[in-house]
Amino acid sequence: MHSTIGIGVLGAGTVGGTLVARLVDEHAAIAAKTGLDLRVKRVAVRDLDKPRDFTVTDGVLTDDRMSVIDDPDIDLVVELMGGRDLAGDLVLAALEAGKPVVTANKELVASRGPELIAAAERSGVAFLFEAAVGGGIPIIRPLSETLAGEPVERVLGIVNGTTNFILTRMAEDNADYGDALAEAQELGYAEPDPTADVSGADAAAKAAILASLAFGTWVGLDDVYHEGIDSLSPVDMAFAADFGYAVKLIGIAERIGEGVSARVHPVMIPLNHPLASIRGATNAIFIEGPSVGELLFSGPGAGGAPTATAVLGDIIDAARETLAGAQVAPRIRFSPGDQIPFGDVPTKWYMRLEVDDRPGVLAQIAGAFGNAGVSIKSVWQEGEGSEALLLIVTHSARESAQREAVRYLREVDALRNVASVIRVESEEA
Amino acid sequence: MHSTIGIGVLGAGTVGGTLVARLVDEHAAIAAKTGLDLRVKRVAVRDLDKPRDFTVTDGVLTDDRMSVIDDPDIDLVVELMGGRDLAGDLVLAALEAGKPVVTANKELVASRGPELIAAAERSGVAFLFEAAVGGGIPIIRPLSETLAGEPVERVLGIVNGTTNFILTRMAEDNADYGDALAEAQELGYAEPDPTADVSGADAAAKAAILASLAFGTWVGLDDVYHEGIDSLSPVDMAFAADFGYAVKLIGIAERIGEGVSARVHPVMIPLNHPLASIRGATNAIFIEGPSVGELLFSGPGAGGAPTATAVLGDIIDAARETLAGAQVAPRIRFSPGDQIPFGDVPTKWYMRLEVDDRPGVLAQIAGAFGNAGVSIKSVWQEGEGSEALLLIVTHSARESAQREAVRYLREVDALRNVASVIRVESEEA
Repeated sequence: MHSTIGIGVLGAGTVGGTLVARLVDEHAAIAAKTGLDLRVKRVAVRDLDKPRDFTVTDGVLTDDRMSVIDDPDIDLVVELMGGRDLAGDLVLAALEAGKPVVTANKELVASRGPELIAAAERSGVAFLFEAAVGGGIPIIRPLSETLAGEPVERVLGIVNGTTNFILTRMAEDNADYGDALAEAQELGYAEPDPTADVSGADAAAKAAILASLAFGTWVGLDDVYHEGIDSLSPVDMAFAADFGYAVKLIGIAERIGEGVSARVHPVMIPLNHPLASIRGATNAIFIEGPSVGELLFSGPGAGGAPTATAVLGDIIDAARETLAGAQVAPRIRFSPGDQIPFGDVPTKWYMRLEVDDRPGVLAQIAGAFGNAGVSIKSVWQEGEGSEALLLIVTHSARESAQREAVRYLREVDALRNVASVIRVESEEA
Repeated sequence: MHSTIGIGVLGAGTVGGTLVARLVDEHAAIAAKTGLDLRVKRVAVRDLDKPRDFTVTDGVLTDDRMSVIDDPDIDLVVELMGGRDLAGDLVLAALEAGKPVVTANKELVASRGPELIAAAERSGVAFLFEAAVGGGIPIIRPLSETLAGEPVERVLGIVNGTTNFILTRMAEDNADYGDALAEAQELGYAEPDPTADVSGADAAAKAAILASLAFGTWVGLDDVYHEGIDSLSPVDMAFAADFGYAVKLIGIAERIGEGVSARVHPVMIPLNHPLASIRGATNAIFIEGPSVGELLFSGPGAGGAPTATAVLGDIIDAARETLAGAQVAPRIRFSPGDQIPFGDVPTKWYMRLEVDDRPGVLAQIAGAFGNAGVSIKSVWQEGEGSEALLLIVTHSARESAQREAVRYLREVDALRNVASVIRVESEEA
C-alpha cells in the first residue's frame, strides 16, 4: 500500500536531471524503503528543444513554470533553477498555494529565507533545503534538529569545493593560482566564469545559512563579509606549512559575546585541525558546542549525484509531512540578535611584508603595529638587503585595528609592499 | 507564546542527570530557539536516597517507574535506564499509552526494535533513538532521513570509544592491552567490568542499528557476529603500521549481493582511510553510496553531555510532532532481506604464525592455504630458526575458507602457533 505524491520540478540542469532520472529509475526501491509512491508530474525547463538524458515517463516536460505550481496533481515542488528573484517568486507562489517546497538554492535561502520560512509556516507546509549547503553532506537537518538543544558556539566550514581543489593544488604541487584554476576548469570543478566560487560569494551564502541555523539569529547573505582566494600565492602557502598551518577558504559562523558573526576568507589553520586535511573538492563542516564537543561532517560538497541525494531526502521528508497532514515545524525560529560588524571581530593576521633590510626597520614596523594597538606574536625574516621579507603574525586584535596597523605600516619608508595578508585561526590568543 | 510539553525521564545516571539539569538550566534558551516549553514532570530513579547533582524544580523524583507512564501531565517519555527487559516493557507501555518515547538504549533498539517501532506506528507517536549510536554525533537522522533515497552500500563505524582509546594507546605508545585497559579505566573511559566494550558486544548493537537503517532490512543484535580486542598485541599493531595499516575495532554493515551483513571485529584498515586517523575515544562513521560517494561523521561517541545533546534533539523533534498532532512516520520501514552468514562473507586475513624455520616449511604452509582454496597475497618472514615468524596476508576468500585454512595449518609440523589473526579491509581483492 503506497501513498502517491505528485512532484513538480523547476529546472533540469545537472542536479535536476539527475534527480528526475533517479525518481524514475529508483521508483520501486524508494517505494519499498519509504512507502512512498513518488511521481514526477511536471518538469519545467527553459528550452524544450534541448536534448536531455532523462525521460519523464509519467509526466510532461513544459516551459510554463507556473503550470508546475498550478497543476492540481502536483503535491510538492522542487526548485532547482537557482537565482533569487524568479526562483523566489515561484517558491513563494508554491508555498502560498499550500505546496511544500524543496530547494538546493543557497542564494535564495540566504537572501529570502525568513520570508519563505514565514510563508511555509502560514500555509502549514514544509520548506526544506538540505542540499543548499554541503551538497550530499547531511548538515542542515543535524544542525537544525539534532543540535536544536545545543548552544553551538562556532561552525567552521570548507563549503566550496572549487576553491578547496585550487588551494590543495597550490599547497601540494606549488601551482600558482592561475594554473590551479585552469586545471579546475578543465576537470569541471570550476565554471568558465569562476567568480562566484573564487570570490567567496558562494561560500558566503552557505555561511549565512549555517550561522542562521546554528544560532537561531537570522544572518542574511549581504551581512556576510567575504574575501576570495585569487590573491593567494604559493609562497604564502609554503610559509604557512613551515609554520604548521594549512591555508583554506573557510566560512566561519561564531558567537562573539552576545552577538554573532559570519564571514568567509582565507584562513591559516593549524595542520592538526581536522579541516586542514580536507583535500580536493571535498567539503567539511566542523561544529563546536559546549556539550557536544567537536563534530566533523565531510563528503562531496557538490555534483549532481550527491546533491540529488540530499534533495531526495528532503522530498521524502516533505512527502511524509504532506501525508500526515501536518507541518512538524516551525523547524526554524529566529530570535533577534546582534550581528557583530567585521571590523569588531577579533582576528589574528599573518602578513608578508617586502622591506629594505636596513638598521631600524624592525623598530619602525613594530611601532606601526604598536600605534594601532596590535601586538606582534612572531617576526621571521627571509632574505637580506632589498630582497628581504618579513613574515609577521599578530596576536588577536579587532579587525579594524589590524587594518589600522596596515595604514601605519604604509607610512614606514623601508616598507616596499604589503605583499599578502591571511587571517590565522588558532587556539592561542 | 510557548507550547508546554511534560516530560518524564526513566533513569537518572550520567546521561539522565545531565539531561535533566540541562532541561532545567537551559529552559529559556530552548524555548527561545524552538518555541517549546519543555518541563520535566517526573524522574524515576532506583534509589531515592542517592545524592543527585540536579534538582527537578517543577516536578518530582520517584521510584515508581509506572507513574511516569501513567501521569496525565506527561506527554513524552525519555528512557535512559538501559537493558532490554524492564526498559523495553516500560517503553512499550508508554508507546501503547500513546506517548512518544526517546531513548539512548542501543541494546533495546537492537533487540526489540521492530516490536517498538510497530507499537509507535500503531499509536501514531514517535520512537526516536539518535543517541543510541555515536553519542553526540548525528547519525540516525542523517541515515534514516537525509539518505532515505540513497541505496547505501556500506557503513563502517568506529562506534566504541573505549576500545578505540585502548587501540590508540597500543598503537602510539606500544602499550600492551592490559596496561592500556587499566589506563582507560583510570580515566573513566572503561567500566570496572569492561566486557561489553572490549568484547565488541556494545559495538555489535550499534552495528545492528546502522545496518537496519542503512539497508531497510532488520538486523537484530543477535545476528551480528562480534569479536573483541582483548587478544590483540602491540606486535601486530607495529607490523600493521609497517604494512601501511592501522588496527581498529570496526562495525561493518554492508550489502553483499542481494543480502546484507553486519559484524564487528578488529580490522587492519589502510592508513590513508579516514577511519585510520580517528584517535582516542572519538567515534566516527563512514558511509559509502553510489550517488553520495563517501561521507564521514565524527565526534564524541559517549559521555553524558554529548549524549544528552542527542537525546534533547530527539525530544524537541518528538515534541513538535506531538504539538502538530501527527506522526510524520513511518520513519523506518523494514523489508524482508537475506542476512549473509558470517562464514559466507568474503574476508581477507592477516596472520602471524610462529614457525620453525626449516626447509620446506613455506611449501607446507602454502599447501594448507591452497587446500582450503585461499590464495596468499604476501608472506613476510621475521627472525630465524625457532624464533621465526611468518606474517601472511591472504587474498579475499569466504570467511569459512579462511578458517578451514587455519585447520589445515595446524596440521603442519613446523607450525608452533597461530599467534594472531586480524581481518584486512582494503580496496584490492
